[in-house]
Amino acid sequence: MSGRRSKTLYEEVYEEIRNDILTGKLKKGERLVSKRSIAEQFGVSVVTAENAIAQLIAEGYITAVQRSGYFIQYSGDGIAPAEEKPTLAAEKPLDNAPVSGAAALFPFTVWARLMRSVILEQDTRLLKPVTKGGVWELRSAISDYLYRCRGMKVHPDRIIIGAGSEYLYNQIIQLLGRKLTYAVENPCYEKTVKIYSLNDVKLRHIGMDNNGISISRLRESKADAVHISPAHHFPSGTVMPISRRSEIMKWAEEKSGRYIIEDDYDSEFRRTGLPVPAMFGMSGGGRVIYINTFSQTLAPSVRISYMCLPDELFSLWEEKMGFYSCPVPAFEQYTLAKFISEGYFERHINRMKKHVYRSLEMISSAIATDTVKIHETGDGLHFTVTIEKGAEEFIKKAEACGMKIRPLSGYYAEGGEAYSKDYVVSYAGADEEKVKEIFGGAHENI
Amino acid sequence: MSGRRSKTLYEEVYEEIRNDILTGKLKKGERLVSKRSIAEQFGVSVVTAENAIAQLIAEGYITAVQRSGYFIQYSGDGIAPAEEKPTLAAEKPLDNAPVSGAAALFPFTVWARLMRSVILEQDTRLLKPVTKGGVWELRSAISDYLYRCRGMKVHPDRIIIGAGSEYLYNQIIQLLGRKLTYAVENPCYEKTVKIYSLNDVKLRHIGMDNNGISISRLRESKADAVHISPAHHFPSGTVMPISRRSEIMKWAEEKSGRYIIEDDYDSEFRRTGLPVPAMFGMSGGGRVIYINTFSQTLAPSVRISYMCLPDELFSLWEEKMGFYSCPVPAFEQYTLAKFISEGYFERHINRMKKHVYRSLEMISSAIATDTVKIHETGDGLHFTVTIEKGAEEFIKKAEACGMKIRPLSGYYAEGGEAYSKDYVVSYAGADEEKVKEIFGGAHENI
Repeated sequence: MSGRRSKTLYEEVYEEIRNDILTGKLKKGERLVSKRSIAEQFGVSVVTAENAIAQLIAEGYITAVQRSGYFIQYSGDGIAPAEEKPTLAAEKPLDNAPVSGAAALFPFTVWARLMRSVILEQDTRLLKPVTKGGVWELRSAISDYLYRCRGMKVHPDRIIIGAGSEYLYNQIIQLLGRKLTYAVENPCYEKTVKIYSLNDVKLRHIGMDNNGISISRLRESKADAVHISPAHHFPSGTVMPISRRSEIMKWAEEKSGRYIIEDDYDSEFRRTGLPVPAMFGMSGGGRVIYINTFSQTLAPSVRISYMCLPDELFSLWEEKMGFYSCPVPAFEQYTLAKFISEGYFERHINRMKKHVYRSLEMISSAIATDTVKIHETGDGLHFTVTIEKGAEEFIKKAEACGMKIRPLSGYYAEGGEAYSKDYVVSYAGADEEKVKEIFGGAHENI
Repeated sequence: MSGRRSKTLYEEVYEEIRNDILTGKLKKGERLVSKRSIAEQFGVSVVTAENAIAQLIAEGYITAVQRSGYFIQYSGDGIAPAEEKPTLAAEKPLDNAPVSGAAALFPFTVWARLMRSVILEQDTRLLKPVTKGGVWELRSAISDYLYRCRGMKVHPDRIIIGAGSEYLYNQIIQLLGRKLTYAVENPCYEKTVKIYSLNDVKLRHIGMDNNGISISRLRESKADAVHISPAHHFPSGTVMPISRRSEIMKWAEEKSGRYIIEDDYDSEFRRTGLPVPAMFGMSGGGRVIYINTFSQTLAPSVRISYMCLPDELFSLWEEKMGFYSCPVPAFEQYTLAKFISEGYFERHINRMKKHVYRSLEMISSAIATDTVKIHETGDGLHFTVTIEKGAEEFIKKAEACGMKIRPLSGYYAEGGEAYSKDYVVSYAGADEEKVKEIFGGAHENI
């Protein structure tokens, strides 16, 4: 199947006549010879000639005039039909690196078994259009999960499945509209900022203190909607205390048209104790849109996210956005529904947590030196460091171990220059053996 | 796993203290009794009391002051923790209807076999992040397919995988920007219009003649980008002749910043002869973005679409949009890649075409009467009818057979009132047995 399909006789006839038109050999307004003459000229049957003529008519090169024959309709220029395969080298980019770090913990054999059982159980039902908002089994499994593990009461109907957080950010802007002024935390996850920018909305970057986004600066900004990660802010790691949450809730309730977008992207990784309760569950939660994703907790190639909408916004969503088809294939949704409802998801999270926090102890002890100071390693899959000197060398070594290192200043819209020696270390992909090899034995821990 | 996880001892302690804070029994600024007193009071170990205190600190209810103890940080109001499961009835909506019409032709057993072999072959590679733009195997298979069947030369790198056409419409607007004025055909597919509107771009509705979108009205509109379906317009069925394509190409090339969005959504269903060549293949194609989807040709639950970008726009895409993760799960992409490259896709299209056009003959002959006049049933999965009287009755019967009937006027931004008796019939889902049963034997055909 690699070459172009071999041409049929009528295609050859069609192409020759078309090329005569394109090159100007046959001119606009001229009469084409009869189908019998074409058949004779090309040594083909009249039926074949008729097929070639039908194609030329369909594409508008000639037109049929009753009792007069066929006339050229087009004076050729500007057309270069494709004749050869693309000449750019079409090589598959090589990527043989094995899955490493926390991602290697994913119970793929379980997932593969669930995929096979979904194929058997759902059978041709997999072909049916997905209910708007997503497959019911998945929304129901997420509803149960949120109740069990986040203390949230969300009806499955109010849970909308999306193809990753990025997809949902775009959907939320369409839902709330571009007339609102949006606010994000400064510093902030860079993709969030990019998506607001690509949506041409007014965006304010609100400074933070130790308790999270500054409520006074939020008020000054005149923003209508604020996008925050109260459970665990990226990149600072701040957990927003109940008092600040409550203040933001009050801010939202003071005026209609104010909203909180609660991005709960890695709340599952809370190190000890219970996850910090979601703002969606608070009594003023009618103004909160909750979003979360499975890309961090399962695998980056599983692009399933969801948002929970309060009643009023759900009605608006149905009215404005209900025409959208759910972007996630039914198959993945059924598989994930089983994975969650059969308890594998929570078991996986627990294994991951054990792994990443053991790994974090080991890594932070191995990389800390007099010139590399590690800030508090709280929850989540990243922490920050201050590097007094030798940053380039450090980054090279850390990346060779599978960590990702980014300058902290890069996450600031303004004021980042104060953090020119600070870096964000994402360690979930790190290979512990390599860390030992490259950073040597234990250093003095800070 | 259906109830809430049973509480641990420390959770019980934590919840009681938290509730005392929330209800005002413990007031802001007050000192909390020591952990030993808590342990005694609740009859738990000191470690359990410590865990409860740690959770209260993490959530910001209390704070630890060195050598003084714990102090209440929060004066409770506005919090109603979730205690019970959602009370709305959470029943799965029933849908036991079998897959009918053309969708039933999908070779599900082949697809299921390919899914199983992707699980075996790719194994944990399925967990890796997908290359931006999509899985190489799928982009390569689409490139070969476009060359074989559409005569298009597109390098796999220039093919971007999306989660359905709706996803790509949004991406294209972000790529080209909201400063442009966009134009669509009048009438037009309603979701296209909705997505442009939700993106708050200036949108012009350009009238059509028998050859497609009017070039003079396009010029008058001052639009920068025009979204068209030259191979087969929805809902009119118009195939744009080469002369009009050429005029639109010239329009695009006259001025920088002009673009053509070629929506080739059901070109595969061309009834006879070759598919009409795509505008992307024409020599001025540097201004054309080509989009197509597999939702129509495979199944609506398989949400995979793609766009082909010319070089210049590809560079812009990399710069502006390259940060987006591919929204389609790797698994579906590998499965579809096999389905195409092993020849099943083209075989399936051919079977579908045979089925739908035989079905079309049968249906159009069964439903035509003196008062229901069928317009030309050309290519594609829909046709239009004029109903002189008894429209309501007709629609009820047709929908009982699995057809979808929509008033043609609904697709017009303006001027739709002239078509108040016209309807668009989507017949691909029709059950022929039911058509026979409900519409009776053959009527006089028009």
